[in-house]
Amino acid sequence: MSRIITVGRQFGSGGRELGKRLSDELGVPYYDREIISEIAKRTELAEEYVHRIVEQRPEYHFPITVGRTLQGGASDYLMQQYASVYAEQTNVIRELAERSDCVIVGRCADYILRDRKPLRIFVYADMDFRMARCRERGQKDEVASERKLRRKILAVDRNRRRYYRSYTGQAWGNPANYDICLNTAGTDIKAMAHALAVMIKADQE
Amino acid sequence: MSRIITVGRQFGSGGRELGKRLSDELGVPYYDREIISEIAKRTELAEEYVHRIVEQRPEYHFPITVGRTLQGGASDYLMQQYASVYAEQTNVIRELAERSDCVIVGRCADYILRDRKPLRIFVYADMDFRMARCRERGQKDEVASERKLRRKILAVDRNRRRYYRSYTGQAWGNPANYDICLNTAGTDIKAMAHALAVMIKADQE
Repeated sequence: MSRIITVGRQFGSGGRELGKRLSDELGVPYYDREIISEIAKRTELAEEYVHRIVEQRPEYHFPITVGRTLQGGASDYLMQQYASVYAEQTNVIRELAERSDCVIVGRCADYILRDRKPLRIFVYADMDFRMARCRERGQKDEVASERKLRRKILAVDRNRRRYYRSYTGQAWGNPANYDICLNTAGTDIKAMAHALAVMIKADQE
Repeated sequence: MSRIITVGRQFGSGGRELGKRLSDELGVPYYDREIISEIAKRTELAEEYVHRIVEQRPEYHFPITVGRTLQGGASDYLMQQYASVYAEQTNVIRELAERSDCVIVGRCADYILRDRKPLRIFVYADMDFRMARCRERGQKDEVASERKLRRKILAVDRNRRRYYRSYTGQAWGNPANYDICLNTAGTDIKAMAHALAVMIKADQE
């Protein structure tokens, strides 16, 4: 039985680490930033720009007032870009899942691959834990101030929620859309990844 | 390291089975209905009556109009009964957790034992899965009609939600209050219990 694993995650919760460890445990590829690079290549857009697009809801890329006063052309062009990025995201993710079992982090993969019945994991934790984790692992600019870090975490999550809602029509982080939701605060991500691998392997036998 | 496991569960989701299997895997006692029996013994109330109380929010045991028109005495007496049942529930659960590692299903144990930092599991599934599971396992009267079964499931969940909210001030089934949320629809509960046991044992080493 083939098994695709998708990982949705709150910012700073350790979803990326869990996904990476899980892919190591299972000996399958792990896709995260690679998807962005591939979309960038195919759409001939800059990687950073694609990254910004796939983490935000289309209409939030420019102020509403600007969107309203644009004379059609520029606004249409932007909307087309977002649509083509999402279309390529769908293509890339489907192709990767066709190629082999894998772990895919973020990017609405759970929804895009719903016909393949992936194991859908969502990773979350309380704000204190996520702030501490960001501090521990962050670059210098991320540890500037308590308030700034909290704001950044909330902003990234808000964008993910909007993006997910826009393209899937579902609520991001709602347990009903996932098979397993994991609170990483106070638990050992390594042990968690190992246990998940045990379960997935048992299910494949 | 001692480890207490609490299992909250939507009606019909298989939380009971998961808890039982987990206790077998870990070789620790499993408490569910036993708690009711012990409360009944201590409060000298009938077991069925205690069961009804711990699955419902106090004020829902008698029609609001009756509650309003009662001349104090009877209403006070009932409220005292609920309070004493909850107090005994707290005592029994704390004593069981003192005695040894264990798996406790329902009864606000996650909240009552919060100082012990239990592993808090919540088990859920979509309505179709739960209805099918109830049908498979239910007694004859439970398979009467589609509509009746759906109503029963919704009513039990509503009561659990109210009871939990009354005594903990928290939202039942909100991922923030649990460490792991498991969707049992389409997954193998046996494999899930085994994987959880692997994780818990790894954490104890």
